[in-house]
Amino acid sequence: MEPVSAAVSAVLPAGGSGERLGGATPKQFCGLQGRPLVSYAVRAMERVSWISDIIVVVSPENIETMKSIVEKYGHKRVTIVKGGITRHRSIFNGLKVFAENQSSNRLLQKPEVVIIHDAVRPFVEEDILLKVVMAAKEHGAAGAIRPLVSTVIASGEDGCLDHSLERARYRASEMPQAFLFDIIYQAYQQCTDHDLDYGTECLHLALKYCKTNAKLVEGTADLWKVTYKRDLYAAESIIKDSLSQQICIITDVKEAVVQAGFLLHESLKNQVKVEAISISLSKNDSHLQNIFSGECYNFLCINDKEYATEEIQQLVDMLEKSNVPLLYPVVLILVHLNISENISFSIGLEELTKIKKFAREVKKKNILVYGLLIQYKKFPLNCYASGLPILSRGGLEWVLFS
Amino acid sequence: MEPVSAAVSAVLPAGGSGERLGGATPKQFCGLQGRPLVSYAVRAMERVSWISDIIVVVSPENIETMKSIVEKYGHKRVTIVKGGITRHRSIFNGLKVFAENQSSNRLLQKPEVVIIHDAVRPFVEEDILLKVVMAAKEHGAAGAIRPLVSTVIASGEDGCLDHSLERARYRASEMPQAFLFDIIYQAYQQCTDHDLDYGTECLHLALKYCKTNAKLVEGTADLWKVTYKRDLYAAESIIKDSLSQQICIITDVKEAVVQAGFLLHESLKNQVKVEAISISLSKNDSHLQNIFSGECYNFLCINDKEYATEEIQQLVDMLEKSNVPLLYPVVLILVHLNISENISFSIGLEELTKIKKFAREVKKKNILVYGLLIQYKKFPLNCYASGLPILSRGGLEWVLFS
Repeated sequence: MEPVSAAVSAVLPAGGSGERLGGATPKQFCGLQGRPLVSYAVRAMERVSWISDIIVVVSPENIETMKSIVEKYGHKRVTIVKGGITRHRSIFNGLKVFAENQSSNRLLQKPEVVIIHDAVRPFVEEDILLKVVMAAKEHGAAGAIRPLVSTVIASGEDGCLDHSLERARYRASEMPQAFLFDIIYQAYQQCTDHDLDYGTECLHLALKYCKTNAKLVEGTADLWKVTYKRDLYAAESIIKDSLSQQICIITDVKEAVVQAGFLLHESLKNQVKVEAISISLSKNDSHLQNIFSGECYNFLCINDKEYATEEIQQLVDMLEKSNVPLLYPVVLILVHLNISENISFSIGLEELTKIKKFAREVKKKNILVYGLLIQYKKFPLNCYASGLPILSRGGLEWVLFS
Repeated sequence: MEPVSAAVSAVLPAGGSGERLGGATPKQFCGLQGRPLVSYAVRAMERVSWISDIIVVVSPENIETMKSIVEKYGHKRVTIVKGGITRHRSIFNGLKVFAENQSSNRLLQKPEVVIIHDAVRPFVEEDILLKVVMAAKEHGAAGAIRPLVSTVIASGEDGCLDHSLERARYRASEMPQAFLFDIIYQAYQQCTDHDLDYGTECLHLALKYCKTNAKLVEGTADLWKVTYKRDLYAAESIIKDSLSQQICIITDVKEAVVQAGFLLHESLKNQVKVEAISISLSKNDSHLQNIFSGECYNFLCINDKEYATEEIQQLVDMLEKSNVPLLYPVVLILVHLNISENISFSIGLEELTKIKKFAREVKKKNILVYGLLIQYKKFPLNCYASGLPILSRGGLEWVLFS
């Protein structure tokens, strides 16, 4: 998924004061599960490989805060820019970085298309970003829209209803939006102080100053803007939900184990987001590193060995070395699969003590290690395909290591 | 706080299918902390003493569900009415009950002012209800409004931006709304099938058919409508928050203990919502019954006796007898205050065993009992005014009963 032959970068205005939220911390810096909101939005952009630069525009007093967030969460491709006193002035400052090469940090290439997205909309997906970018390439400007939740009304001077708008004819303008860089930059260069001080809508500027009618793209419900305290609650719950609904299955490269991983993947994929990879754990695999730096906190590691202490150790090492701090508990389930026809195995007391000690140690680092022994000889591998419960018909033993 | 000489009733349309939420259960029946959303909205109305009747309009297939909710949560003053296929038709059905005395259950008096509120806006407060009712008495119609969160735009036939509205000039129309009954009923009687089938805005009907320009009343952020799944998350968090931030202080009627309760109330009132009452626990106090039926799940019970097992027993009995089921854990902290100059007391082993056994029993009913012994002789009572920490300078002993 890559917008053909377009250089794309993004500007994230994050200069707001968050008055509507109440409380002293601007909402983009409020922590959700310990991580600031703006970091989720930056990560959503970073995950998209075809976005070159991510400009985060913050008010002067928050530049140091933002720098420390970039460092702490290992954000790449981010340039921090000083914001203006209004939203439009901040976005303009963000765009200037490309046009005037003002950035002292490094040389930023002027993009063909620029995405503008809010720092307080953490759940933007690659799909909608691609749609607005492609539409902007064709139409010059594009923006995500949503149906109106409430009827919109106009008030008269006496504070009474003047008229109400027919809900079906109007839409809420949301983010992300995308523009041919030259169009939006030209619009900002031409626009009046009144626009810069009181306006908020970029699509309006493109229409007013460049006669560009933006293409409107229907967005998904998760594009909403964190505005009030209740939105922080909602965002936190969504993050918790998504953390518990992703799992990575790691198998070694032996065929039977790979097959078990594949079948488990098939049986789980309708319920949770599953990624399955087969690697030799002794190698420092870059794909695995990427997963560790991503959103996955649940790992199911399948092998056919009686003892896999070394492999666990390696996995935990890689987890610890990954740039992302372990904000949430990582759950690591080790599945010891006995696929031989005749021999049954079990974990001896000494080995169990060793693993349990290890699990207690890593628990302090917020990594929870569990083990599952499966005596598999009596059942064909495709039992997996019917889901996990069937496994209990074979010999199955849960070991709580920590 | 009572709208002078106006008979006021309320209609709650609760017939929606909740498509935007996803999932099979219509949102008004989704459980928040185990209790359906509609029950929170009904309770918000019930708490307002000057609202006579509460008409809940549900679709035919949900009438039995709604009946069981009214029974389970002990709702009073509620009449369930069968809804139509659209929102306006449902509201009209709700209004007809007053006009035509159709209700087979009992005779409903036609109100002077009728409130219309959504079943999916659970956090409405008496203050805003009073404001819209008073405004409706004066202007014939009134409704709560909120600033727009997003810019509203009109789309052309080509799916491109036609124009955007200046955000400051428009408002979102929210609920509650209130009307002189005769005005809104006349509007519904006159309105076309097209209005009934495609319209959603009651203020618009009052304007179109009765030339009544509704007074617009600025509402608070908590009036928002539960529309998407994220709103359910938010509502649940708000409910949890509010449960943990209310406390009821119960003292017996002895002067020194009442004074201690008063001072504790003063020192806590800026942090949590506190209610303090002084009663003789042996009497079945109606005020206490009201508190038990309300939102409070934290009780601090102060007495000056060494043993208060009987009082605890009485309190727990009253809690159990209150109509509201114990959905959440009730926390009951017993403070044994020794205010005599010379004698110090402590709970003996036998008594402690007895209380602990009792606490274990009631824990099964979701009531958690804790105890606090305070040797108070060395400090004057007004130490309380500086907050709880200072108490630890006296003799202080925590007893975990359960």
